[in-house]
Amino acid sequence: MSESVFIGVDVGATKILVGAVTEAGSILSSRRFKMEHETQAATLQSIHRSLESFMRDWEGAAPQSIGIGLVGQIDPETGTWLEAMNLPIKSPVPLAGPIRDQYGIPVMLDNDVHAATLAEQRWGIGMQSKDFIYLNIGTGVSAGMVFGGQLVRGAHNYAGELGHMVVKPDSFLCPCGRRGCLEPLVSGGGLLARVQNELVNYPNSRLHFLQDSLTSHQIFTAADTGDPFAEKITEDAVGALSIALTNLVNLLNPEWIVYGGGTLSDGWLIEHVREYVKGMPLTMIRQSLKGIIPSKLNPEYVGLLGAACLALHAGDVR
Amino acid sequence: MSESVFIGVDVGATKILVGAVTEAGSILSSRRFKMEHETQAATLQSIHRSLESFMRDWEGAAPQSIGIGLVGQIDPETGTWLEAMNLPIKSPVPLAGPIRDQYGIPVMLDNDVHAATLAEQRWGIGMQSKDFIYLNIGTGVSAGMVFGGQLVRGAHNYAGELGHMVVKPDSFLCPCGRRGCLEPLVSGGGLLARVQNELVNYPNSRLHFLQDSLTSHQIFTAADTGDPFAEKITEDAVGALSIALTNLVNLLNPEWIVYGGGTLSDGWLIEHVREYVKGMPLTMIRQSLKGIIPSKLNPEYVGLLGAACLALHAGDVR
Repeated sequence: MSESVFIGVDVGATKILVGAVTEAGSILSSRRFKMEHETQAATLQSIHRSLESFMRDWEGAAPQSIGIGLVGQIDPETGTWLEAMNLPIKSPVPLAGPIRDQYGIPVMLDNDVHAATLAEQRWGIGMQSKDFIYLNIGTGVSAGMVFGGQLVRGAHNYAGELGHMVVKPDSFLCPCGRRGCLEPLVSGGGLLARVQNELVNYPNSRLHFLQDSLTSHQIFTAADTGDPFAEKITEDAVGALSIALTNLVNLLNPEWIVYGGGTLSDGWLIEHVREYVKGMPLTMIRQSLKGIIPSKLNPEYVGLLGAACLALHAGDVR
Repeated sequence: MSESVFIGVDVGATKILVGAVTEAGSILSSRRFKMEHETQAATLQSIHRSLESFMRDWEGAAPQSIGIGLVGQIDPETGTWLEAMNLPIKSPVPLAGPIRDQYGIPVMLDNDVHAATLAEQRWGIGMQSKDFIYLNIGTGVSAGMVFGGQLVRGAHNYAGELGHMVVKPDSFLCPCGRRGCLEPLVSGGGLLARVQNELVNYPNSRLHFLQDSLTSHQIFTAADTGDPFAEKITEDAVGALSIALTNLVNLLNPEWIVYGGGTLSDGWLIEHVREYVKGMPLTMIRQSLKGIIPSKLNPEYVGLLGAACLALHAGDVR
């Protein structure tokens, strides 16, 4: 008897990754497609066409279900994509229904961080712990929270907006309307924006030479070489992340923090906050925290695995 | 057939309230005892004697189980009272076992905030919502979090330390070792400590006349009459609580915030943060928040109801 197969669709702002995944988390096949995102219609057509193309070429066992991980706000109960910041989804899209009708199998949507957290729960740290936080810092900041073996979704599936925890009330105005949110201080997007806005004040910074293709990793490296501007913005990032994670640990008493996302991938930021976050929570709470470790799931495929996990979870969601 | 009866023991720093409660949350009988707390032995003896006295006089149906709500750190799995700040529990006490052996029925321990949150879940807002936060501000600050209908306990049952969320990093040093924690800025204990420490700098403050029996309510009233010192510390409290609750709402996406505790009982603080907390979270998240409302459970008895709830939950806990 052949193994059950689940289709994952990982929808990002610039690409779509579609794959067939087994219950054990093996990726049997995957393909990357370009996301056309000029309009809402083009965005949706990209998703439908990518899935069609993959399904047409797929020659393995008939898939059990389809899971789709999306950026932005999702209602998993109704299978509706409500809105997205980085894609032109301006009115709610009932996405699961049409795809279910087309392929005749269950379809589950969720946001990319909840999806990745479910993958982490099923195939990562969740194999040994019921109480963990999946911290993702890339363009933005978010936290997937699993406690008592259950993903904390919130009343309308929006839980996890750690990026809008205010940690420095006298700092920048965030687009959300408050000052001193974590996200503009520590995310890849936030760090690059600071360089763009403030570099003019540091004529001798070596970041001038990197400006065209700047990455957060290069900012961290420049700080290590003593570049004063890079030192300033990375100190702010380290301070803000130290406070936010310690707040989170005190509030939720996790056993593990597992991290992923482009801004954390070189380990620099985590190494700079580790001592504070392990040392500063309340005594009993810091003794419960076993570690702050990188996700063992392949970062290239965690989105796809998360989407496949949604397919596996079809039926679980309220 | 008579109704099932559950015994609740609400252990505070200065009193012990023991009662018999039905599954519907009716208190059939309750008695208040004095807590002797000179030593660990005296503290434990007070608990045992109070329970014995109540059980001896109880003439109703045989109780199903006993629940005990305690201050401090508890391990509900082993029934151990690990430590307490306001009572002299210096070494871990295996409390559930001896009581179970004495009365021959299950005994469940937990901390008072988890217990009150379970009461809120069973007999309060939980009757209409699966996703809420129970905010308690009295001597200290804590938050009971119920999401997906499940109390968030954390890895070792310490979840809920909202009081040690840093919201103003340039503020006071908290006994926990960090600066700008919520608790010293907003709790009853924190407000009174600020008056004690800083009143000398405000020779004309009307708080001088109230100093012997000062309450947080009197500080709020003094602020309303324009007392500059009272205005200063209440502005700090309002600012800190506004940030902390909005952080919490963005992180967890609750449907309701229900509040209790002596410092919130006159409604003053909540009325001063309500507009910010309802207006400043991310759009979809603030639209999910239906309200910030006082607990409808009688504040005199919420601890007892919480303890009885532990008895009702005997068997649920991992």
